[in-house]
Amino acid sequence: MAIKTLGARAAAALDRELMSTGAFSIDQLMELAGLAVSQAVYRVQPLDNGPRILVACGPGNNGGDGLVAARHLFYYGYKPTIFYPKRSKNELYQRLTKQLEDLEIPFVDDFSAAMRSTDHVVDAIFGFSFSGEVREPFPAVIQSLQDTKIPVTSVDAPSSWDIENGPPKTGLGSSFMPTALVSLTAPKPLVNHFTGRHFIGGRFVSPSIAKKYNFEVPPYQGVDQVVEVGSSEQKL
Amino acid sequence: MAIKTLGARAAAALDRELMSTGAFSIDQLMELAGLAVSQAVYRVQPLDNGPRILVACGPGNNGGDGLVAARHLFYYGYKPTIFYPKRSKNELYQRLTKQLEDLEIPFVDDFSAAMRSTDHVVDAIFGFSFSGEVREPFPAVIQSLQDTKIPVTSVDAPSSWDIENGPPKTGLGSSFMPTALVSLTAPKPLVNHFTGRHFIGGRFVSPSIAKKYNFEVPPYQGVDQVVEVGSSEQKL
Repeated sequence: MAIKTLGARAAAALDRELMSTGAFSIDQLMELAGLAVSQAVYRVQPLDNGPRILVACGPGNNGGDGLVAARHLFYYGYKPTIFYPKRSKNELYQRLTKQLEDLEIPFVDDFSAAMRSTDHVVDAIFGFSFSGEVREPFPAVIQSLQDTKIPVTSVDAPSSWDIENGPPKTGLGSSFMPTALVSLTAPKPLVNHFTGRHFIGGRFVSPSIAKKYNFEVPPYQGVDQVVEVGSSEQKL
Repeated sequence: MAIKTLGARAAAALDRELMSTGAFSIDQLMELAGLAVSQAVYRVQPLDNGPRILVACGPGNNGGDGLVAARHLFYYGYKPTIFYPKRSKNELYQRLTKQLEDLEIPFVDDFSAAMRSTDHVVDAIFGFSFSGEVREPFPAVIQSLQDTKIPVTSVDAPSSWDIENGPPKTGLGSSFMPTALVSLTAPKPLVNHFTGRHFIGGRFVSPSIAKKYNFEVPPYQGVDQVVEVGSSEQKL
């Protein structure tokens, strides 16, 4: 049985619903999303395997999730570094950035150099609203993520992948397969093309919303904000 | 060595600083505070000991922390019930309330009746800004918490206690000793009068803020948002 997924339009509608009738603020949702990402990274990249985490942030909400995750990772004992070349003027992102600066977390401009001194990469470049082409300066970043042997955890989508159809057929991103993927709220259709470790982070979705959008709430354990749903045998 | 604490004025100043130069929104901080409370309750009241949690919320931020904690507890598998007699008109609290209503979490008016069908109580009535006298309808609530055999977890302060001096010398609250206390951000001086299980939830305070306010960041483990600091032998 295939995993139940949420297409790009449904995911956008669900987000709008959480923030309108659901009465969540974006601050709240992004905090919970970034926290979920940080907990997945904690499992994929145990501290003993190397504490240096390069977080590549895109210009939108996916990048914001990355900024929040970086802050939590710092508190777990990791050493995050942020690549955030297209900073949003949005006040929320400016605040999330300031929170990292206050922890003396470095922001770097040279992605290739940063890749040479990290143990893990968080791909928080593009999320479920991505479509079309990868704009500058991100093609080189995605090329690097595709080529590297360093483990990569992608937030909501491997960046450059089509939300519905998965990796591009040819060219940039066509052979990009991150080590891990954290689906936020619910998995998107692209997960059917993903063969790495798959986590879901959406322990703030009410049973009624899950029912309305026709997906299943996965079996989160204890106080965890993420659950690993594994490969084909464990499909929900 | 006595535990390092933060007086009421310093705690208020720290909160203001987090939200001004620290660039945190109150939504973010309350989400993290309530999450910390929920994780402490998860330890104090294992699900197998009974899933029914009565959350008594006061009119201010302490009550807001209780509303957030109740939501997380629902997701962990508990059955929260909310007593929230003095609802704030503040838009944030209205949203936190709506989030609970969407989970069909009941709000009740009769505290005594609710006490007869719960396994645990969260005291989120008054926090570090409390001083003076307990206003209606809370005297009967605090009397009940003082008299009950049901375990109680207090948020930031056992309600009715003086933040600096601990329990009142006589009368209401003078013999109120909750099972557990979750100090948010940092312990307040009243902890020197507290003999129950003591947790700290403030894994969002930067090392520089902790230094400035002269308290120590406790040894949080893994991805935990709380740490139990125990009794006198384990003072920080």
